[in-house]
Amino acid sequence: MNFIIKNVLIATDDDYTTVDVQVVDGIITAIIKDGQDAGSANQDGRSHTTNGDKLLLPGFFNAHTHSSEMWQRGVIPPFPLELWLAELYDFTPLDPEQVYLTALGTAVETLLSGGTSVVDHLVLIPGKELETIATAVRAYREVGIRAFVAPLIQDESLTAGIPSGDAKRTHEAYFRSTAATLELIEEAVRQFHRPDEGVNILVAPTGIQLCSDALFEGCNELSNRYNLCRHSHLLETKAQEKLALEKYGCTAVEHLQRIGYLSDRTTLAHCVWLTQDDITILAETKSTVVHNPLSNLRLGSGIAPILKYRQAGVNVTFGCDGASSNDSQDLLEAIKIGSILHNATDLDYQHWITPRQAVEMASLGGAKGLNLAEQLGSLTVGKKADMVLYDLTSLSLLPRTDPIGLLVLGRPTNVVDSVWVNGKQVVASGKVTTINVDELRQELFNHSQWTAQRKSPTVAQIEAHYRMVMGL
Amino acid sequence: MNFIIKNVLIATDDDYTTVDVQVVDGIITAIIKDGQDAGSANQDGRSHTTNGDKLLLPGFFNAHTHSSEMWQRGVIPPFPLELWLAELYDFTPLDPEQVYLTALGTAVETLLSGGTSVVDHLVLIPGKELETIATAVRAYREVGIRAFVAPLIQDESLTAGIPSGDAKRTHEAYFRSTAATLELIEEAVRQFHRPDEGVNILVAPTGIQLCSDALFEGCNELSNRYNLCRHSHLLETKAQEKLALEKYGCTAVEHLQRIGYLSDRTTLAHCVWLTQDDITILAETKSTVVHNPLSNLRLGSGIAPILKYRQAGVNVTFGCDGASSNDSQDLLEAIKIGSILHNATDLDYQHWITPRQAVEMASLGGAKGLNLAEQLGSLTVGKKADMVLYDLTSLSLLPRTDPIGLLVLGRPTNVVDSVWVNGKQVVASGKVTTINVDELRQELFNHSQWTAQRKSPTVAQIEAHYRMVMGL
Repeated sequence: MNFIIKNVLIATDDDYTTVDVQVVDGIITAIIKDGQDAGSANQDGRSHTTNGDKLLLPGFFNAHTHSSEMWQRGVIPPFPLELWLAELYDFTPLDPEQVYLTALGTAVETLLSGGTSVVDHLVLIPGKELETIATAVRAYREVGIRAFVAPLIQDESLTAGIPSGDAKRTHEAYFRSTAATLELIEEAVRQFHRPDEGVNILVAPTGIQLCSDALFEGCNELSNRYNLCRHSHLLETKAQEKLALEKYGCTAVEHLQRIGYLSDRTTLAHCVWLTQDDITILAETKSTVVHNPLSNLRLGSGIAPILKYRQAGVNVTFGCDGASSNDSQDLLEAIKIGSILHNATDLDYQHWITPRQAVEMASLGGAKGLNLAEQLGSLTVGKKADMVLYDLTSLSLLPRTDPIGLLVLGRPTNVVDSVWVNGKQVVASGKVTTINVDELRQELFNHSQWTAQRKSPTVAQIEAHYRMVMGL
Repeated sequence: MNFIIKNVLIATDDDYTTVDVQVVDGIITAIIKDGQDAGSANQDGRSHTTNGDKLLLPGFFNAHTHSSEMWQRGVIPPFPLELWLAELYDFTPLDPEQVYLTALGTAVETLLSGGTSVVDHLVLIPGKELETIATAVRAYREVGIRAFVAPLIQDESLTAGIPSGDAKRTHEAYFRSTAATLELIEEAVRQFHRPDEGVNILVAPTGIQLCSDALFEGCNELSNRYNLCRHSHLLETKAQEKLALEKYGCTAVEHLQRIGYLSDRTTLAHCVWLTQDDITILAETKSTVVHNPLSNLRLGSGIAPILKYRQAGVNVTFGCDGASSNDSQDLLEAIKIGSILHNATDLDYQHWITPRQAVEMASLGGAKGLNLAEQLGSLTVGKKADMVLYDLTSLSLLPRTDPIGLLVLGRPTNVVDSVWVNGKQVVASGKVTTINVDELRQELFNHSQWTAQRKSPTVAQIEAHYRMVMGL
């Protein structure tokens, strides 16, 4: 579908201007300033005329989430990651229908908060791994969001993720072999990896805390063979920092560099506990940090040193993280908190993230991390039309001041008017057009129930050890 | 108006139950459990029946804001308080009509995010001080929110608020005398202080950084004579900590205690830079801390030691702060961030704020701070009916898990169904019923314009000195 958006505000280097934006075959083909001739191309397609009270921005990347966690949002008590994870897995959904519904929900919330791409570090249902992936892919295709499905894999069992301290501990073997896991991912790539159709498979070991070197190296090999991006959690908690030293005798970043996992198509979620040398390694390897500020606060993981990353030239973008450690999928919220949080860490305000920088991190930063900066991440002629149109007449964005300042620093409500992914409109007049969101709400309602008193048996089992090791 | 809300969820000690809530003459007169007889009283009035998919909570307090800052939300660059304030005052609104519109806006955003009371630390237009107060009072009466108008006063000029360091500096005298300022407040009390009608005037020196002892002491005297609550900023920034030591040779808290400003009806906004001894003083004097987490982050003021306050028994509640240091008036956002932010400051998760504790801080905590815990802050028979009904079928609160967990930890969107203040309904079906919000939006739009490039002359003038004193 070809179309032109007329009379829309876009950001220039340090101001705004009103333009017409023309899209042909999913590509931005012209950005025409006031009074210039739009040429004949706009006569081919539909025209969206705004009153000059709408702002067009490139779509953001929800660069790290776990869609099925949405089933447990709001319910896990204030716990640090290791205990939170134990509770999460005690109640993890085991029905692909559940995966489907929350992939839809994650896509909808991402779109309605300015995102056009989602990186779903997808928790796989044991024994139904390919079906889980197929289900998430189906949901994302239906909604029409650009999908980066990163099947979450590991080859060590959960208790191995907690440092041993002085205790000698053994852990059950993980239920699936490393080789079988790699084979599974390769099969997923064959079946679902269709970058031209907006569906991408990533290699995504969960992190050093639960993965062997063999798993990381197998992923490297798949990444090289099929040209796949790489994803992982990295040093989310103090406990993981301890664990890396126990496991490798060096930092996790040094180890990942040694085994070749870091690259310009590697995105690393969290990155809270890095040393200055680690930061240099991320910059040298052109790795991307995915900042999940809300999750890091909710789980008490710490405040990632984002200003240091930026000063060292490390690419940074934002993620919501899964909806049970956030407990939302509102990308504008993650961008706001992920920007202002760091002002408290550096007295020099000249280092603080400006709203325009935040927008660039959320759009171009995400595209860079997924090795797609040539195709996505800015309103540039020749790039794909992943674009979001914001209605600046929402009460939450009034009075009129600086539109990007209002979007990033405010608490925008009902502001996303339209969204296009690859030139296809998927949100119009504030409503998702591709699926029936009221039906989705009804399904989510029907498949759940109020609960205030559930208890995790695994937490009961491991809490004393956790407190001992962490000196609590 | 008497009414009964039927079949509504409320929180019990550690669970939820479905009840009917009966209100007569603005007072909660009965909370009737499933199956019990509602008696005859419900036959007098209207009945609101919910399907058991709505949650009733006590109204929250937006316990610190500056309404007219809304004119500058989104536009002030990332600056620390002292520079931010200089820019704020360079562009402060001077027309009472502007004050009116943003008081309406502040009230509407507060109501639609769960608040039923607002403490407006109101910036006064020079020469039109009483008119400013009258205008804000009129706006709050029209919307029907419970209003605590705290006219912001000082008797030293702005440059006095920055520490001198080694430099010898003199400051222009403030344009109005201390005596005239106190007289102004007394006149405001006479004209507008009507607690029974939901309008309260507070004494509210802006803070130690710009106020003489004579001003604080005059406020004490008015507070005692007219039974007024006391409000002030306190130790928002590192610079203010330095300034207090320069000015008093002791901490600001020690000084305020010495001059008698601290009490069980004193609310203190920010409280970021307190010592352990200061915290003990707040506990002993039963003073209340108003936590403004978003503003503290946005201005890089720091992270207030809220967990320490709670452990010391200090009452804490939440505020949005003015909309140009936040840049919103979404109370649920302030409650969420004000809860989870502190998880990063204490490794022991048993100290972290739970969603239920956050709700109590936002409701009963606010009532305590304003010396109204006997009348407000909980759903209790005999208390005033300041209540908010949340629609739990919003996508942002699905799937169903723990309703309060979803509200506090999620990012609720369009969830406030109904609000009653003093038993009067002011929001129904998600819409404010007392004023025309579309007209308000239009007025705010018409009175403003897009701007990306404004420059503050005062910032240009003081920035070099600020950087020098702060060692930047």
